Amino acid sequence: MNVDEPASLMAPFSVDIDIDRGLLLNATGHLVRKASDMRGHYADADALAELIAEGDDPVHYEVFEVPVPDELGHLMYCISTLQPGRVGDECFMTKGHYHTMAETAEIYLCLRGEGIMLMKTADGRCASEQMVRGKMVYVPPYWAHRSVNTGDDEPLVSFCVYPGKAGHNYGDIEREGFPKRVFKRGGEVVIE
Amino acid sequence: MNVDEPASLMAPFSVDIDIDRGLLLNATGHLVRKASDMRGHYADADALAELIAEGDDPVHYEVFEVPVPDELGHLMYCISTLQPGRVGDECFMTKGHYHTMAETAEIYLCLRGEGIMLMKTADGRCASEQMVRGKMVYVPPYWAHRSVNTGDDEPLVSFCVYPGKAGHNYGDIEREGFPKRVFKRGGEVVIE
Repeated sequence: MNVDEPASLMAPFSVDIDIDRGLLLNATGHLVRKASDMRGHYADADALAELIAEGDDPVHYEVFEVPVPDELGHLMYCISTLQPGRVGDECFMTKGHYHTMAETAEIYLCLRGEGIMLMKTADGRCASEQMVRGKMVYVPPYWAHRSVNTGDDEPLVSFCVYPGKAGHNYGDIEREGFPKRVFKRGGEVVIE
Repeated sequence: MNVDEPASLMAPFSVDIDIDRGLLLNATGHLVRKASDMRGHYADADALAELIAEGDDPVHYEVFEVPVPDELGHLMYCISTLQPGRVGDECFMTKGHYHTMAETAEIYLCLRGEGIMLMKTADGRCASEQMVRGKMVYVPPYWAHRSVNTGDDEPLVSFCVYPGKAGHNYGDIEREGFPKRVFKRGGEVVIE
């Protein structure tokens, strides 16, 4: 984590967040992940294929932001919105990622919905934290993290902050997966 | 901003924030600043002395946190609670600070109350942003920042995030002050 150049000088600004509905009202950046972007991540590949073909490739999650310079010293922030749903009986989730600069943390302040934050280290440790409105999950340096929506109706919405230049390393999770998955069976959330 | 050692490895955890009332429910760290800690910061020193002597040295602001390692890569976070009130007709405010590591940003997500974020650079630029529930103020690297409560009844409460090891440099603000102050006269907020 060596940085020679100073962070760029910029003017202060503000953005508007609807804290109750979980919306970044003046977002200029918008990332969308659909079911078809999630191939290889769910246990039941056939159920995912069916969801894509017959379920009209539904949106899994979206990320809304107003970008700042991607430099150490700055703080990236976003609103993450993960839809409810199942692939077979596995709950909708994000791809999950390490940070490219693995030694950087991330903060998730849940604003809406209910879910699980799954976390893992490269050496196989696994952890989970409940997500519900007002729960702030601290993802320490070196932990890959994936959000899972365990609700039936509401999106799981979080306000997220991470260091500029942290970056997203999706490749390692595509290879490794997570040691645990989150299912909902008969109304019960099961992590296994 | 050179760091040789990696951030320490720690386990994930969560904290509970009452998003509506603006409380960090399981805080283990608690900083209190009273009127007597604010000597030298207000325009009317006599009014401050009277507030301390006759107003029973009221609390100005508090910071609640659950500490994480103070290392780059980690993210410090807190709930900042600034009481309403006046010193003469100048609104209650925080001391204000640069970061010791000046090239680091800070994010303030306002949860409750109303106020102004005053910001300045060492070379004399000055800026302000309104604070109200849902407003997220981005304090870029190199900007000193001070919160001001312009309300009459409610505390100004923000959820704040800044990089580990950023540090607080109060000394420069004690010497420089801010180019502008915030007053309330006849119900009107005046920045001058």
